[in-house]
Amino acid sequence: MKHIDHIGIAVKNLEVSIPIFEKLLNSPCYKKEMIESEQVLTAFFQTGQTKLELLESAHPEGVISRFIEKKGEGIHHIAFEVEDINEEMKRLVSEGFVLLNESPKKGADNKLVCFLHPKGTNGVLVELCQSIV
Amino acid sequence: MKHIDHIGIAVKNLEVSIPIFEKLLNSPCYKKEMIESEQVLTAFFQTGQTKLELLESAHPEGVISRFIEKKGEGIHHIAFEVEDINEEMKRLVSEGFVLLNESPKKGADNKLVCFLHPKGTNGVLVELCQSIV
Repeated sequence: MKHIDHIGIAVKNLEVSIPIFEKLLNSPCYKKEMIESEQVLTAFFQTGQTKLELLESAHPEGVISRFIEKKGEGIHHIAFEVEDINEEMKRLVSEGFVLLNESPKKGADNKLVCFLHPKGTNGVLVELCQSIV
Repeated sequence: MKHIDHIGIAVKNLEVSIPIFEKLLNSPCYKKEMIESEQVLTAFFQTGQTKLELLESAHPEGVISRFIEKKGEGIHHIAFEVEDINEEMKRLVSEGFVLLNESPKKGADNKLVCFLHPKGTNGVLVELCQSIV
């Protein structure tokens, strides 16, 4: 794990939340992106080495909608940048962690990503991500 | 906001969770500390610019116990390092955010801290912290 690439925050409505986080961080949203594979709209903010990624469901049955129904708006996951996602997935499986996807998939921000089951990480949804070069 | 200083994670039992996060991060816990003012035991891990801070309640009625009862173990707050906490508190109040403490208080890791009301930040509990030099 190199560093925290981003923190994902589930929100109901990006257009409401973007100005809130712009005021909070005193810094503009620099990118919006649709993640087709997850049907999620994202908005990014930079703070030091780490980004905040706001997540709005593009679908009423999507993972972000279900998360908000269950827990309300708030922090959804932490993503760690890794050097080699396949090696890190192997290492974590050998340590007993459970992966939510068996091979890396295309995430936001031009990255390959893999999620770990939060039952093995004290309820924290952890994402691994590796930049595609 | 300079960068994300740490992410606070509520856990039931530090002694169970420390080895989990050591395996996850492939990096040792480097410090444990009791925060007297909050009656919370903490354990720290470094990952790039940002720390993970595990939080265990030292008191059954404490904020961390109540959080876990309501939401389960998981991510509790995000803390941003700021240059001047009093100035940042003033700026945020002028932007309409609500502070949970009106003057900075002593937190973990030799910092002055202030929390924002999560109702104003899409359910995200935000901490400001300034290192005491």
